[in-house]
Amino acid sequence: MSALSRRHVLDLDDFTPDEITQVLDATVEMKEVLSRPIKRVPALRGKTVVNMFYEASTRTRVSFELAAKNLSADVVNVSASGSSVEKGESIVDTMKTLEALGADTVIIRHAQSGAPYLAAAHTGSSVINAGDGWHAHPTQALLDLFTIREHFGRVEGLNVTIVGDILHSRVARSNIWGLAKMGAHVTLSAPYSLLPDVSDDCDAPICDCGTHLPKVLIEPDVDRAVEGADVLMALRMQHERQSGGLLPSLREYVQRYQVTRERVARAQPGALVMHPGPMNEGIEIAPDVAHGSQSAIQEQVTNGVAVRMALLYLLQGETGGGL
Amino acid sequence: MSALSRRHVLDLDDFTPDEITQVLDATVEMKEVLSRPIKRVPALRGKTVVNMFYEASTRTRVSFELAAKNLSADVVNVSASGSSVEKGESIVDTMKTLEALGADTVIIRHAQSGAPYLAAAHTGSSVINAGDGWHAHPTQALLDLFTIREHFGRVEGLNVTIVGDILHSRVARSNIWGLAKMGAHVTLSAPYSLLPDVSDDCDAPICDCGTHLPKVLIEPDVDRAVEGADVLMALRMQHERQSGGLLPSLREYVQRYQVTRERVARAQPGALVMHPGPMNEGIEIAPDVAHGSQSAIQEQVTNGVAVRMALLYLLQGETGGGL
Amino acid sequence: MSALSRRHVLDLDDFTPDEITQVLDATVEMKEVLSRPIKRVPALRGKTVVNMFYEASTRTRVSFELAAKNLSADVVNVSASGSSVEKGESIVDTMKTLEALGADTVIIRHAQSGAPYLAAAHTGSSVINAGDGWHAHPTQALLDLFTIREHFGRVEGLNVTIVGDILHSRVARSNIWGLAKMGAHVTLSAPYSLLPDVSDDCDAPICDCGTHLPKVLIEPDVDRAVEGADVLMALRMQHERQSGGLLPSLREYVQRYQVTRERVARAQPGALVMHPGPMNEGIEIAPDVAHGSQSAIQEQVTNGVAVRMALLYLLQGETGGGL
Repeated sequence: MSALSRRHVLDLDDFTPDEITQVLDATVEMKEVLSRPIKRVPALRGKTVVNMFYEASTRTRVSFELAAKNLSADVVNVSASGSSVEKGESIVDTMKTLEALGADTVIIRHAQSGAPYLAAAHTGSSVINAGDGWHAHPTQALLDLFTIREHFGRVEGLNVTIVGDILHSRVARSNIWGLAKMGAHVTLSAPYSLLPDVSDDCDAPICDCGTHLPKVLIEPDVDRAVEGADVLMALRMQHERQSGGLLPSLREYVQRYQVTRERVARAQPGALVMHPGPMNEGIEIAPDVAHGSQSAIQEQVTNGVAVRMALLYLLQGETGGGL
Repeated sequence: MSALSRRHVLDLDDFTPDEITQVLDATVEMKEVLSRPIKRVPALRGKTVVNMFYEASTRTRVSFELAAKNLSADVVNVSASGSSVEKGESIVDTMKTLEALGADTVIIRHAQSGAPYLAAAHTGSSVINAGDGWHAHPTQALLDLFTIREHFGRVEGLNVTIVGDILHSRVARSNIWGLAKMGAHVTLSAPYSLLPDVSDDCDAPICDCGTHLPKVLIEPDVDRAVEGADVLMALRMQHERQSGGLLPSLREYVQRYQVTRERVARAQPGALVMHPGPMNEGIEIAPDVAHGSQSAIQEQVTNGVAVRMALLYLLQGETGGGL
Repeated sequence: MSALSRRHVLDLDDFTPDEITQVLDATVEMKEVLSRPIKRVPALRGKTVVNMFYEASTRTRVSFELAAKNLSADVVNVSASGSSVEKGESIVDTMKTLEALGADTVIIRHAQSGAPYLAAAHTGSSVINAGDGWHAHPTQALLDLFTIREHFGRVEGLNVTIVGDILHSRVARSNIWGLAKMGAHVTLSAPYSLLPDVSDDCDAPICDCGTHLPKVLIEPDVDRAVEGADVLMALRMQHERQSGGLLPSLREYVQRYQVTRERVARAQPGALVMHPGPMNEGIEIAPDVAHGSQSAIQEQVTNGVAVRMALLYLLQGETGGGL
C-alpha cells in the first residue's frame, strides 16, 4: 500500500474520490487483520499516537486507541480535564508540545468547529479530526462509506436518506461530502428548525444552492424521504434541543421522525439502517429497527476500528513492519 | 491448563468447588510468573481487555490493568465520566459497542447491584464483575481464598470471622459464598444496624436461614466472634454510614469493633489478619495490626494481580503463547 | 551504563555533580534513541511504571509515559480523581499498595511539598518527584541542565537569569540547586512580593545567606538582571497571583518583567531563552521571543523525554534488554 499524499485528515471536502477509494481499499486489508486470532500487526511499532479528546467520547476514543494498538503503536490519552488546557495553554502551544514530545499522529476531538485545522497548521505531527463542533467527523463518514460499499459493492448511484438533527450534526456534514464524492444521491429529512437554511441565496453550511456543500435533496416529510432509499441513516437527537426551543416536543419528534419498522418498509427491500451512535433508542430510532436484521449499526462500530487502522497506516507509511 | 467452562465471572455463587480450585491452582502458576525478573508472558497477545469502571477505584482497576499487561493483552480504560454513559447510552448498547470494537473481556465495576449480569446477557465478550453495588466482588473473594490457602495449605475446616459493615459489603457477600463452598466456617460480627436481617423467615440477602446464602454464624459481640478464629477479616467502614444514622458514633464503633491487637490475641495463635482495602486505619483496624506480622494485607494485593491473571487466562484460553 | 547509586529522585539538593553528569551523559544516549526511525528499545520490558498525578498535568505526565513506553515498560496512570485517594486512603497505604501491585517506579506529582519524600520512605518502589507543591521539580531541572549543556557544551561558569514568580516555583528551586552544583552563576529577578525573604537572618527556603539554598544573586530590576546572561529562564505567572494580592496588576507585571526582545538583546549575544511550560504568552514571555530563534522551549520538551528515559533506566538498571 502506498501512503496517502496528505499529512492530515480534517474533513472529506478536500478528498478526491480516488483518495477515498484508497482508504476504503486499505480498510479491507485491515478488516482481514481484525479477523485473525491475534489481531495485532507490527506496522506502526515505535510510533506514537496521542488521543486528545476535549469532548466526552467512549466509542471514538476507544476505536482510535484500539486501532493504534492493533498496529503496535503506542497510545497516549489526553483529556481536557486534568490537562494543561485547564491552565490556559493555547491549542497551538499544546500541539507544539505534543510534537516535541514525539507525537507522530494526534487525534483531536474538540467542541469548537475548526479547532483541528488550527492544530494542523501549527504542528509537524499528523492530525486526524475525530469530530469538531457541528463541523466535521471524517472518520465516521469513511466508516459509513466503507459499510455501505461492503454491503452493496458500491456507493455510486445509491439513494441515501439521512434523518434527524442535520443542523447540529458533524456526522451528516462529512457524510454528505463523502457520499456526494462517491456518487450517491443524498436526501436530508428533519423538521425545518433542525435543517440548515435552504433558501436560494443562503450562506448556510448546508444548502441546495450548491455553494457550500454538494447538492442534496431536502424533504422534511420523512415518509416521503425514505421512499426508495437504499440506506437510511438516523442521527442522534440531543435532549437539550427540546429545551433549546428547536423542537415543539420530543414526543412529537418521535412520532414524526423516528426511524420505525413502518418507515424502513417504505425504503428499498433490504435497505441498510445505520446510526453513528450512541443511540437514543426509542427517540430517533425504534429498538426493533436498531437491533433488527437490516441494521448495520454493530458492523459500523467494527468497521470504525478498521478504517482508523487504515488511516493511521496510510498517514505514517509502513515503518515498523508489515501487516 | 484447560479453560474455565464458563464465559463470565459474576459471583462465586455459581462456582463449583472444583472450579474455584482450578482458579486457585492457575493462580499459583501466575504467582510464579510474577516472581520472574521480567514478569511478562505472551499468553494473551492480541487480546483486548476493557476496564469499564463506573465507580472510583485505584487498586482494583490497576490490578486488572497490570494483570492484563503481564499477559501481554491490550488494555483500554473507560470511566463513566467522559464516556458515552454520560450521554445516556444504556449499558446494553455500551456492551454491544465494546464487543463490536473488539473487546475480548470487559471488566465492570458499577454502583448498581446486578449491572454486570445485565452486561453479560447482551454481549459476546467475557464479563468479569469487579464489584457491583452491595452485591458481589468475586475476584476479591478469590484472592482472599488464595491468600488463605497459600497460608494454611487449605481452606476447608478453617474458622473465618468477618468483622464490620457486612450489610453494605460486596466483599463479604462473595467471600461468604467462596468460603462456604470451600468448606470454611464463617462468623459475621457487626452492630445489628450493619447486619442483614437474620430472622427465621428473612428474605434478606444474608441470613442464617440457609435460603439465600450459605449458613453462617452471626455474633455481634466481636470479642466472642474472634475466639478461635484462624482468619480475621476486617471490612472498610464508610464514613457516610455514621451520618446515615446506622451508627451511633464512629468513636463507639471503633471501641466496640476495631480489630485491635487484643482482639487478634483472642484468635488462634498465628491467625491471619486480612482487609480488602483501602483501609481506614484507626477505624476498622488498628495501625499496628494492619502493618503487623500477622497481617496478610500486602500479600492480598499481590495475590490480586495473580488471581486476575489466572481468570483472564482461563476465560480466554491460551491463544497468544505460553507462560 | 552503570545504575545510579540511589533509589529515588526527589530533588537535586542531594545529587553530587558527578551524579548529575551521569544522568546528562545517559540522556545523550537516550536522545540518540529518540532520533531512530523506531524509537523503542527493550531495556525496561516487563517493568511497571505508575504515573500518580494528584495535580493536573499534560506535558510532564505524557513525557514520563512516553519515556517509559520508549523503553518498553508498562505504564499505568492513576489520578487523584477516581482513585482511592478520594476514599481517604493515605499516601503511605497507596504506596504500599502500588508496591504490592508490582510498581517498579512510581512517578508522583502532588500539591503538597514533601509528599514524594513521605511516599519514598514507605515503599520498596523507586520514587521520582514530578513536582511537589512549591518545593521541587528535579526532572525539569535536569532537562534544563541538559538543554544548557547541549547548547553551550558546559554549564560551569555560565550566567543564568531566572525571571518571574520565584516564590511559588518548584522549577526555580530545583534549577538553583542543579545550576549551582554544576558551577553556573544564578541571578533571580522578580517583584519583591514574588521573591523569598532575603534578609540576612532569613529562614526562607531561598535566600542569599547561604543556609538553605546555594548562594544566588537577587536583582529585582529585570533590565539589570538580564545583562550579560547566557541563559534567560522565564517562569509561568499564575493568574491567581494577581487576585491573591501579590501583584498590583498583571499589566504592570507584564510591563516590568515580561521577557521581551529588548530584554533578550541586553543579554549575551546568542543567549538561550527557556521556559518550563505551559506558557502564558504575552504575560511572562513575548510571543516573538517564545517562538524566536533563541528559544530552546521546544527542545526542552524533547529533552524532557530523553532525561526521563535516562532516569528510569538508571534507577532500574538494564534488565529487559539493551539500548
